Amino acid sequence: MIYLDNSATTSPYPEVLESFRKVSETYYGNPSSIHQFGGEAEKLLKTSKKQAADLLKVSEQELFFTSGGTESNNTAIKGIALKHQNRGRHIITSQVEHPSVLEACAALESLGFRVTYLSVNHEGKIDLDELKRTIDGETILISIMHVNNELGTIQPIKEIADLAAKYPKLFFHVDHVQGLGKVPLDLSHPGIDLCSMSSHKIHGLKGTGALYIQKGTTLFPLLHGGGQESSQRPGTENLAGIVAMVKAMRLTMEKQRHSYQHLEKLSAIIRTALHQDHRIVINSPEDGAPHILNFSVPNFKPEVVIHALGKENIFISTKSACSSKHSDESAVLAACGWGEDRSHFGLRISLSYQNTEEEVREFCKTFIHVLDQLNNVMG
Amino acid sequence: MIYLDNSATTSPYPEVLESFRKVSETYYGNPSSIHQFGGEAEKLLKTSKKQAADLLKVSEQELFFTSGGTESNNTAIKGIALKHQNRGRHIITSQVEHPSVLEACAALESLGFRVTYLSVNHEGKIDLDELKRTIDGETILISIMHVNNELGTIQPIKEIADLAAKYPKLFFHVDHVQGLGKVPLDLSHPGIDLCSMSSHKIHGLKGTGALYIQKGTTLFPLLHGGGQESSQRPGTENLAGIVAMVKAMRLTMEKQRHSYQHLEKLSAIIRTALHQDHRIVINSPEDGAPHILNFSVPNFKPEVVIHALGKENIFISTKSACSSKHSDESAVLAACGWGEDRSHFGLRISLSYQNTEEEVREFCKTFIHVLDQLNNVMG
Ligand SMILES: Cc1ncc(COP(=O)(O)O)c(C=O)c1O
Ligand SMILES: Cc1ncc(COP(=O)(O)O)c(C=O)c1O
Repeated sequence: MIYLDNSATTSPYPEVLESFRKVSETYYGNPSSIHQFGGEAEKLLKTSKKQAADLLKVSEQELFFTSGGTESNNTAIKGIALKHQNRGRHIITSQVEHPSVLEACAALESLGFRVTYLSVNHEGKIDLDELKRTIDGETILISIMHVNNELGTIQPIKEIADLAAKYPKLFFHVDHVQGLGKVPLDLSHPGIDLCSMSSHKIHGLKGTGALYIQKGTTLFPLLHGGGQESSQRPGTENLAGIVAMVKAMRLTMEKQRHSYQHLEKLSAIIRTALHQDHRIVINSPEDGAPHILNFSVPNFKPEVVIHALGKENIFISTKSACSSKHSDESAVLAACGWGEDRSHFGLRISLSYQNTEEEVREFCKTFIHVLDQLNNVMG
Repeated sequence: MIYLDNSATTSPYPEVLESFRKVSETYYGNPSSIHQFGGEAEKLLKTSKKQAADLLKVSEQELFFTSGGTESNNTAIKGIALKHQNRGRHIITSQVEHPSVLEACAALESLGFRVTYLSVNHEGKIDLDELKRTIDGETILISIMHVNNELGTIQPIKEIADLAAKYPKLFFHVDHVQGLGKVPLDLSHPGIDLCSMSSHKIHGLKGTGALYIQKGTTLFPLLHGGGQESSQRPGTENLAGIVAMVKAMRLTMEKQRHSYQHLEKLSAIIRTALHQDHRIVINSPEDGAPHILNFSVPNFKPEVVIHALGKENIFISTKSACSSKHSDESAVLAACGWGEDRSHFGLRISLSYQNTEEEVREFCKTFIHVLDQLNNVMG
């Protein structure tokens, strides 16, 4: 199998699965139980959180484990909105965010909040001047993703943070789900108040994520309950999932340090190959994240291409998995200003450090072959 | 180790862990991906949900997977409140609910909702007449647990459902986290609209739960996003956790059918032994669930007793794990009308089908021995 859909989800590292098994078996006590067996679980929870905080260069008190990226995004956005609505009810985000951001914002609109969806250029980038003009006295939150899940576009997070830092009333949330372990982000940069992460995108397990909440930032929690995670995220802790996530973070961030060029190389190989075929147009910007490459093959139905590749045991995707069953059009490509010839025919390759040169060369060959065959059928 | 804290959490069945591993390894595709590898994951998700729905005798469209009991309770309570607030803003619950219910209600109070906390008798039971009197034209939700997590008290769910069914505006939510696999509950009984369950209380894994939402019942979802779980609970599905939960349900419900009397026997052994010691008063009602036994030993500090038992590798608890770090007093025992001599000295044993007669006899012997030793120290 050649799996090139790593932005949808990744295969868990064997070591991660093994840690999960061990913790589930040996440390199944409830960290909140006051007996010694619960105490051991609590100690492991603290150690894991410390490790994760160290990896992210934040303090342990600023890191909260959740059930995934969707929960982290919802917690950040709704939590700020509900807590600080007395200051103002205006939120700024972009047109190319993940559904868990866009739909959370839409839900807040139904509760009376006002949301501005920033436009993007052909490459999927927001415009800082537009952002600046959009901030008003009522604005309480900016939510912008680091790396776009369909295009790989990297947003100017530092510049947004610098701008946000000038407005003391304003919180800035970064959806870092696609960036973690791929594109560095300095969470200590002034102005970044909240940051979402997800474990299953970095070879961890599904059902675990994290939310960074900068000291001093207060939220209305989505969940209320038994006081776990300093009451920011109650519920019996998924300790095994947390240990697994921290291990996946450590391993992936090591690869980020040592194998980043490998990703760039794979990306360049595919880009060059696709570039040579006149049927294909590339949508991802040159300066985007190296693990995501989006392109369109006008008039080739994406589902048909994907199905044909699947028969060869090669897996790529259309737009993001989360929205792939709704309509043919990629809302992200449409927001970039592309017409239907591109927005209805988008395909996405997303790489992991585990992919090899051989795999991507094999993909390129098979892909062109598949297009030729489909051409014949259609022609 | 003699583990008698199964209401805090349970050890995962080996078969459950093995299923988790297998699914994580083999079916790690994203069920939302349209390629064949995602399709396999989607098929497994559907099969698992069908199995769970069959076990619970509900329809697949009525069952939603969550990250645990806390999320299920919060989704049910806040979801009904936010969705139906135009009809009225009054909620009824009881004084002895789990913190994830009580705190969710308190959060709604901070948003302007009115909450009635029903009183309970010495045995922890609510009074149906009080409930009847409390319902008014503004009441939109009743949330009452099936089995109390500290006492094992079984609430009259059928009678509450019959009453609720008479008010078409009224939704009834049951927190079934402690009842699942122990005390039968017929979800098809008219009047039950929502029901919360948690996997790690039935030898499944932490980080997975379920929420039954009767057809026709609409909620404001806590999470918004990519449309998974019919948009009731978006976020990439924790397929391995779901498969594991369904397996844990199946195995535990089998035990419920075949080994219920085993639990009753264990409970009777402990009850008889404790009854013979004049220092001990039993708080759990005779007709409660067989797996939870609560008692007080006035003037013996619970933490000290628990620590002494822990040294003998025997683990029991004070009140519920979730609130055990806050104060000495059990809010549940206080709500039952017991004075400080009981409410500050409560201990809880919670059994699983895996516990043996030998274990509970060993516990009884060691427990009395520990009390004797502490008596000497204090005397
Ligand atoms: C940019 C982005 N944000 C959020 C999410 C949601 O994360 P999760 O699948 O863990 O809920 C995803 C992935 O689906 C994503 O790509
Ligand atoms: C009655 C009851 N409801 C809800 C919960 C919360 O479940 P979870 O630990 O899965 O969040 C618990 C357990 O802690 C419980 O005992």
